[in-house]
Amino acid sequence: MAEDSDRAAESCQPPKRHKSYVCLYFRGCKSESDSTTRRGKTSENASETTGSFMENVKIMRPDDANIVGNVHGGIILKLIEEAGCIVSTRHCNTQNGDRCLAVLVRVEKTEFLSPVFIGEVAHVTAEITYTSKHSLEVQVKVMAENILTGAKKLANKAALWYVPCSLQNVDKIMEVPPIKYANEDQEEEGKKRYEAQKMERLDTKARIEEAVPPPPNPEDPPKEQCTVGFSQSTLIHLVGPSDCILHQYVHGGVTMKLMDEVAGIVAARHCNTNVVTASVDAINFHRKIKKGCVVTVTGRLTFVSNKSMEIEVLVDASSLTEEEKGKYRAVSAFFTFISLDKFNKPLPVPPLKIEGEEEQRRFEEGKARYLQNKAKRLTDKERQQ
Amino acid sequence: MAEDSDRAAESCQPPKRHKSYVCLYFRGCKSESDSTTRRGKTSENASETTGSFMENVKIMRPDDANIVGNVHGGIILKLIEEAGCIVSTRHCNTQNGDRCLAVLVRVEKTEFLSPVFIGEVAHVTAEITYTSKHSLEVQVKVMAENILTGAKKLANKAALWYVPCSLQNVDKIMEVPPIKYANEDQEEEGKKRYEAQKMERLDTKARIEEAVPPPPNPEDPPKEQCTVGFSQSTLIHLVGPSDCILHQYVHGGVTMKLMDEVAGIVAARHCNTNVVTASVDAINFHRKIKKGCVVTVTGRLTFVSNKSMEIEVLVDASSLTEEEKGKYRAVSAFFTFISLDKFNKPLPVPPLKIEGEEEQRRFEEGKARYLQNKAKRLTDKERQQ
Amino acid sequence: MAEDSDRAAESCQPPKRHKSYVCLYFRGCKSESDSTTRRGKTSENASETTGSFMENVKIMRPDDANIVGNVHGGIILKLIEEAGCIVSTRHCNTQNGDRCLAVLVRVEKTEFLSPVFIGEVAHVTAEITYTSKHSLEVQVKVMAENILTGAKKLANKAALWYVPCSLQNVDKIMEVPPIKYANEDQEEEGKKRYEAQKMERLDTKARIEEAVPPPPNPEDPPKEQCTVGFSQSTLIHLVGPSDCILHQYVHGGVTMKLMDEVAGIVAARHCNTNVVTASVDAINFHRKIKKGCVVTVTGRLTFVSNKSMEIEVLVDASSLTEEEKGKYRAVSAFFTFISLDKFNKPLPVPPLKIEGEEEQRRFEEGKARYLQNKAKRLTDKERQQ
Repeated sequence: MAEDSDRAAESCQPPKRHKSYVCLYFRGCKSESDSTTRRGKTSENASETTGSFMENVKIMRPDDANIVGNVHGGIILKLIEEAGCIVSTRHCNTQNGDRCLAVLVRVEKTEFLSPVFIGEVAHVTAEITYTSKHSLEVQVKVMAENILTGAKKLANKAALWYVPCSLQNVDKIMEVPPIKYANEDQEEEGKKRYEAQKMERLDTKARIEEAVPPPPNPEDPPKEQCTVGFSQSTLIHLVGPSDCILHQYVHGGVTMKLMDEVAGIVAARHCNTNVVTASVDAINFHRKIKKGCVVTVTGRLTFVSNKSMEIEVLVDASSLTEEEKGKYRAVSAFFTFISLDKFNKPLPVPPLKIEGEEEQRRFEEGKARYLQNKAKRLTDKERQQ
Repeated sequence: MAEDSDRAAESCQPPKRHKSYVCLYFRGCKSESDSTTRRGKTSENASETTGSFMENVKIMRPDDANIVGNVHGGIILKLIEEAGCIVSTRHCNTQNGDRCLAVLVRVEKTEFLSPVFIGEVAHVTAEITYTSKHSLEVQVKVMAENILTGAKKLANKAALWYVPCSLQNVDKIMEVPPIKYANEDQEEEGKKRYEAQKMERLDTKARIEEAVPPPPNPEDPPKEQCTVGFSQSTLIHLVGPSDCILHQYVHGGVTMKLMDEVAGIVAARHCNTNVVTASVDAINFHRKIKKGCVVTVTGRLTFVSNKSMEIEVLVDASSLTEEEKGKYRAVSAFFTFISLDKFNKPLPVPPLKIEGEEEQRRFEEGKARYLQNKAKRLTDKERQQ
Repeated sequence: MAEDSDRAAESCQPPKRHKSYVCLYFRGCKSESDSTTRRGKTSENASETTGSFMENVKIMRPDDANIVGNVHGGIILKLIEEAGCIVSTRHCNTQNGDRCLAVLVRVEKTEFLSPVFIGEVAHVTAEITYTSKHSLEVQVKVMAENILTGAKKLANKAALWYVPCSLQNVDKIMEVPPIKYANEDQEEEGKKRYEAQKMERLDTKARIEEAVPPPPNPEDPPKEQCTVGFSQSTLIHLVGPSDCILHQYVHGGVTMKLMDEVAGIVAARHCNTNVVTASVDAINFHRKIKKGCVVTVTGRLTFVSNKSMEIEVLVDASSLTEEEKGKYRAVSAFFTFISLDKFNKPLPVPPLKIEGEEEQRRFEEGKARYLQNKAKRLTDKERQQ
């Protein structure tokens, strides 16, 4: 056990993207190529043995995609979170003390840069890029490779924040072993990102208790097309063992997949076309969801621009057998969807018919987010030039 | 805890079907639209907080369907049972006393009214429509929505009976909190349905011990085409954790899905065409099946009309490691399948070659059921006109 | 309990293949066709009640296949192992003493004789063909049936070795109840197979500790096409509850499915075509893999002939929370893949660019295996004529 505390954290450069980037490896594994690997042996070069970087591959199957073959954004989000959970759980257990599990607390805003199709291979690389005393940031990249043509493209980049919870007592937060940075700037930038997300999490905590959309009365006349009520959708999911592989708690990736699913239904019902996830705003995971719970995921349109729809998704959880203990809001987020024609080109989106002050307020807020994101994309573009 | 006993049960009108029926909601959730939801707060209007009604949505995936895109009847049955289980477990836990789980004991005869396809969204609504002291009836409807055209159609209506079993002792049946009826007639009709199914369950209990079809000897010559033996099929399933989300016992919906699967193989082997589930006779769940069991599901043709096939499906369970304790019959049911051409129009079914007295007896019984159902459909039609 | 020890083992002739072979049955079940089955009743003919033979059917779904509809070899291997596990666990529990589970320790070399397609029904028959004191051999056959045309073909034949582990203490190996042989020759041949595999298992145990391929450095220039490094691939899998239905340990079939998956990615990246599993060399399962582990599966090309590729697959396991206890090699094997055109005819495979002595050594070893297998196939062919 003592030798573990000796394991120095390493400096992790994000891998460069090459034209024919071969990404299939796992830096955490032993690297002595042609000699016998001894158990428990520590490498001379400590940076080679820490688990702060990993890669994974997965073939996309028909069940991962919609009817025209586009892999659901939720599947990509789930892959991203799986990689983040493995790399951060592994890293946090290189310390002495209680064994622990890394629990997702936040995903930064992420964009789906190009669609992924059935039969393509997703390459997921995850790397720990910042550690504070009690949390760590993992940056994850998803490359999609067409193994028939060899073509590769960047499908998604995401940043996730994890917190290590003790296995003995899930409410006890453990300390995170520090990583080594390549230089001071790298650490400084990480610290800025850490402070920024901390602020935002506190901010949304205030908003979190917002009410579930009112259930339409079955006696009401049918909703008019293109209204918020027309496309609003709710799905219910019983949390089973496959949703909770490492914990007694649902993996964040499972929840995000459900959220994307309901958002996709809302978007398709509004447009009656093929829709895909374009981006997801920062998601905060406020409260854990336990095995055996019923999860209610509700999606409703908040804002529609010429070519995109913003859908607010609210996740509530409750125990099926102890419902009197109350339903609680576990997660909420904004998904942006676009509508595609058969050549995968964006289609115009029907305008949203607003009913009432509340919908108008949400529409304005959505518009503000839309304009802010647009401005940010422009700035980023200029900075890159 | 005390406040729970105050929750009055409510009167639940089944939702009307509108041309563009928007069904996505959940009456059990809090309905205060624009105010902050307090934990544990009971609504002024108690009828809004009981869990006696729910709705769910699910996209149909490639793995849910056969090779021409028709969603398997078994998938629909599983969705129906999931909704029934959630709504009745939730309702039975509004009482004081042991936490309990609703266990499926019977599904009434159900017809598949229109086919569902990959990419469509299934809307499942479940509502408690009758409660006796120890059991409850749940009526479930499945609407299939083509989200590209907006078209909706009724895919299935079913009535399920549940019994609440204590989590502390699965053999202890709990009391069911009563629901409120809109009027006396509604309660009276429910009582009639309750009495009728009780009679039938006792009736079939006598039949349940019927033997498994004899295993063909591998040394025997091959069976002649169109005989019962030719298409008879058996599948084996190891009961895993995903089959038992809430219980240590298999959900009824999982069993029905397996039954539909084997019946579909039998029907396809008889016709060599695309086949779909047309209806399922009342199914009684005689005995529970525990995690870790091996389930043997056998299907055989009993009767064939011009355009339909009746397949008897027998489900036997046994512990893999304690097989000496014996195999037992857990469920049995009759499935009716039809054969479809590429335009989804019914095709004639090859006649069944009967061998032996036993097959003849089963054929006659099947014919009687067929004629009875046909007569009942005519009566229902006339009554509606 | 006493009656169990009376159950005589039976002589099991492998079923003959008929032109229209109807294989759907289960010899372990009671066979009294038209009488009521009594619980715990032992048949007069003991050979009818032992669990030393079984059959199963399963429809192949879209998620089981690659993009052109060929069912993955890994799916077939998983089906084979499931049947082997059921039949041997059942057999080993006909004794008195601890309840036990049969754990896969070895699969003999197996060939994929014809491709299986989505919508076909796989018929799996498993039979115990030899028992030593502590292990048993199960022979499994997979027939693929096109239920639309009625055509059937042999897809795979495999021989698996199991060892019964006590449920009370997984490291305690139980005794295997003996089976009866049709004649002395049958027993003698089984004994030869038993001795041969025992030798080979000891042999590979020496090789097992071989190192994981060195991780490519992300700073390195991209690998040249057709080199070993170019197509080398690694996938990571978190062992969840559905991977461990009967044990706290991964079923061998789950591991084989992952191995086939990674080998398929390696082969497709080398050829950029549709690839299928042609054969799998004998696989030894050296060490068990527990629930909650992370499994790292790495595949790399070792040898390429005109029309086939040999891929070495290495499976390493480690606990995510106790990684300091070390990674260990759980399984390793050689998969042979072929490349197919759109008419399912074999295509030429691009030659492999060898870099370094180590790759050259592995290439020569692969070539030796290739020539040996070729010679063996010729001998077998001659013997059959």
